[in-house]
Amino acid sequence: MSSSSTAGQVIRCRAAVAWEAGKPLVIEEVEVAPPQALEVRLKILFTSLCHTDVYFWEAKGQTPLFPRIFGHEAGGIVESVGEGVTDLKPGDHVLPVFTGECKECQHCKSEESNMCDLLRINTDRGIMLNDGKTRFSINGKPIYHFVGTSTFSEYTVVHVGCVAKINPAAPLDKVCVLSCGISTGLGATLNVAKPKKGSTVAIFGLGAVGLAAAEGARIAGASRIIGVDLNSNRFHEAKKFGITEFVNPKDHDKPVQEVIADMTGGGVDRSVECTGSINAMISAFECVHDGWGVAVLVGVPNKDDAFKTHPMNVLNERTLKGTFFGNYKPRTDLPAVVEKYMSKELELEKFITHEVPFSEINKAFEYMLKGDGLRCIIRMDG
Amino acid sequence: MSSSSTAGQVIRCRAAVAWEAGKPLVIEEVEVAPPQALEVRLKILFTSLCHTDVYFWEAKGQTPLFPRIFGHEAGGIVESVGEGVTDLKPGDHVLPVFTGECKECQHCKSEESNMCDLLRINTDRGIMLNDGKTRFSINGKPIYHFVGTSTFSEYTVVHVGCVAKINPAAPLDKVCVLSCGISTGLGATLNVAKPKKGSTVAIFGLGAVGLAAAEGARIAGASRIIGVDLNSNRFHEAKKFGITEFVNPKDHDKPVQEVIADMTGGGVDRSVECTGSINAMISAFECVHDGWGVAVLVGVPNKDDAFKTHPMNVLNERTLKGTFFGNYKPRTDLPAVVEKYMSKELELEKFITHEVPFSEINKAFEYMLKGDGLRCIIRMDG
Ligand SMILES: NC(=O)c1ccc[n+]([C@@H]2O[C@H](COP(=O)([O-])OP(=O)(O)OC[C@H]3O[C@@H](n4cnc5c(N)ncnc54)[C@H](O)[C@@H]3O)[C@@H](O)[C@H]2O)c1
Ligand SMILES: NC(=O)c1ccc[n+]([C@@H]2O[C@H](COP(=O)([O-])OP(=O)(O)OC[C@H]3O[C@@H](n4cnc5c(N)ncnc54)[C@H](O)[C@@H]3O)[C@@H](O)[C@H]2O)c1
Ligand SMILES: [Zn+2]
Ligand SMILES: [Zn+2]
Ligand SMILES: [Zn+2]
Ligand SMILES: [Zn+2]
Repeated sequence: MSSSSTAGQVIRCRAAVAWEAGKPLVIEEVEVAPPQALEVRLKILFTSLCHTDVYFWEAKGQTPLFPRIFGHEAGGIVESVGEGVTDLKPGDHVLPVFTGECKECQHCKSEESNMCDLLRINTDRGIMLNDGKTRFSINGKPIYHFVGTSTFSEYTVVHVGCVAKINPAAPLDKVCVLSCGISTGLGATLNVAKPKKGSTVAIFGLGAVGLAAAEGARIAGASRIIGVDLNSNRFHEAKKFGITEFVNPKDHDKPVQEVIADMTGGGVDRSVECTGSINAMISAFECVHDGWGVAVLVGVPNKDDAFKTHPMNVLNERTLKGTFFGNYKPRTDLPAVVEKYMSKELELEKFITHEVPFSEINKAFEYMLKGDGLRCIIRMDG
Repeated sequence: MSSSSTAGQVIRCRAAVAWEAGKPLVIEEVEVAPPQALEVRLKILFTSLCHTDVYFWEAKGQTPLFPRIFGHEAGGIVESVGEGVTDLKPGDHVLPVFTGECKECQHCKSEESNMCDLLRINTDRGIMLNDGKTRFSINGKPIYHFVGTSTFSEYTVVHVGCVAKINPAAPLDKVCVLSCGISTGLGATLNVAKPKKGSTVAIFGLGAVGLAAAEGARIAGASRIIGVDLNSNRFHEAKKFGITEFVNPKDHDKPVQEVIADMTGGGVDRSVECTGSINAMISAFECVHDGWGVAVLVGVPNKDDAFKTHPMNVLNERTLKGTFFGNYKPRTDLPAVVEKYMSKELELEKFITHEVPFSEINKAFEYMLKGDGLRCIIRMDG
């Protein structure tokens, strides 16, 4: 399909629709409306599954919103652009991102924040900002969006602020994983935890996000990288990512923060939590060394979770931080992260452990629920 | 008394002894043993009362330890030194500090931490490290120390690592307040919160520590300094310290963090908590702006307090930190803080609202319990 033949038209294509919480997705023919002002319509070529999709599909302890098209880690090509879009054109290679960058609000203008007032992640919203409606429908019945991306569809409509234009030479079946998990973990370490050379780092959760955080620690020159996961199978793979030691909290009678303190003479210099488990968040904070330790939370918690610690753990000169998308500003910073892959500074192949055709997308969910592998690439043409 | 006549001897002098939790101190004649290895005996000339003394005297939610000599904010002169003390000699003007600096442990060697492994604050310990005994007694019955300083005595024995040698020209009746509260508040802002020029800062608790934190915000060039206190009388005095707006949580139906968010378009850039109240600690964290806000805890919590917040407040790119003694290393950094006073960069007079002779020390406790004034100087010769 050439851009000229479809621009301004409704596109009928395949999408994987989640009709109900926790039920297998169903490949349906959907209508995708043309992009409105400041929107772009993308042809998705590759998408991958991140745990955030799974949480909102399971919808445990979350606000359920169905029917919905999930998916937010992807690579594609601009099919057409709406009114007012000047810096993207049909044919551009892009990564859609769940947290946007309007370039005009106080967050976008701040050096420190990537939490755009207009386009920051909003997991409750299922509609587009321009008209409060969806661009997806089946026989006129609206199908909700997810975090402004909904990449489990051959075509999707995204706000221009949620699209990073990248080097067209970059293979989309690899760099698509930079659109969420890998950039998130990498940036959480490099941009937020900022370990010094020679320091000790603990990573909680050895999924793709956690291993990308470990990769960041390796790049930063950490001397010890302690991986923590409830699933001991993770350790074998984790060695490829520079994890030097492994702790399974289930193997110990005492809290894992105490195990880590014993291993490190009082605690690690940095920790990065990539699990979404509130217990791991608390342990990740309490396992950093007093005086200088910094803990960074990345995992997405449940709606009713409470982070609870004795205030003396804070007073003892520990620092607690959190980050979305590794503090990268998607439009400004993501092209350079793609270049890190192009220059071989960053390896992505080792994160990609499975590949399935779009028609078998539910297999990707099964792999993740079993904790089997890291990222599963879903080929939209299959 | 000249140093030569008393060195090596037990000194009999007056001390204010706390016999029981919450009961008025009693001026008693005590015996003060000579300093042992790496200890110094100080003649205290001026001491002042900090809320930390009051907490451990009240001993609510703390481990009670009596009879005890409180006091940790003071100025004095070295009377004699124990074996191995090389950088202090009789006659030196000094400030004793509740948190020490051995100069050899990993914290003392770290650029970031002042939580010396050997000499960090320990509110449960009532004895000296060298022999596990007290240097104070009454007719041979031991009287416990407090945070290694016990300055409510004409003479006290302190570890050399807890003594900052200062400019002998500095008036001890003024700079004594730098030995705890004022340095703590000042450093919490300047060394830990680090507000940028033009930023907004909220200070929780407008006692001496909080107002010193406000003074730090003024020195750093903050554009708005919002003071929060349950005692509205504090506001009048607070204006002298650069506080531009005042919020009493009792005047509002909604949580004070929401009031502050409304006043500031989403939250302040920095907050410093100087109350010891767990509610204020939580509010101080939740009132900083997402994306870049930094909250610093200074107040000493109760043993059974829990800091509790939704993890999303962390994930939204807020930073939580804590500090003892404003992150100053006492021996290395305190002399320069004294010089800030000598060069008139820092004003101390406005913190000193009362003065009593030692014989009336219980009045200082009454002032603090009523929230009347800031620091009360206790003249040891009176
Ligand atoms: N902040 C962000 O911008 C952002 C972006 C992407 C993903 N995330 C979140 O990051 C987290 C990780 O994502 P992923 O795709 O790598 O998930 P994943 O399921 O592949 O990996 C998570 C790992 O954590 C382990 N784990 C679970 N509970 C644990 C505990 N209590 N202690 C130790 N290990 C535990 C699991 O066994 C698993 O191996 C998820 O919560 C996801 O929602 C956040
Ligand atoms: N971390 C350290 O190194 C260090 C050093 C010195 C003092 N401190 C602690 O700092 C705190 C302040 O000390 P101070 O001497 O200035 O005490 P202070 O009693 O003079 O002042 C505390 C102020 O906090 C106010 N307050 C109490 N609860 C409040 C609440 N929920 N909201 C708003 N205001 C509230 C009180 O009305 C009072 O004005 C104490 O907890 C003290 O123990 C800590
Ligand atoms: Zn994701
Ligand atoms: Zn923005
Ligand atoms: Zn004090
Ligand atoms: Zn030390």
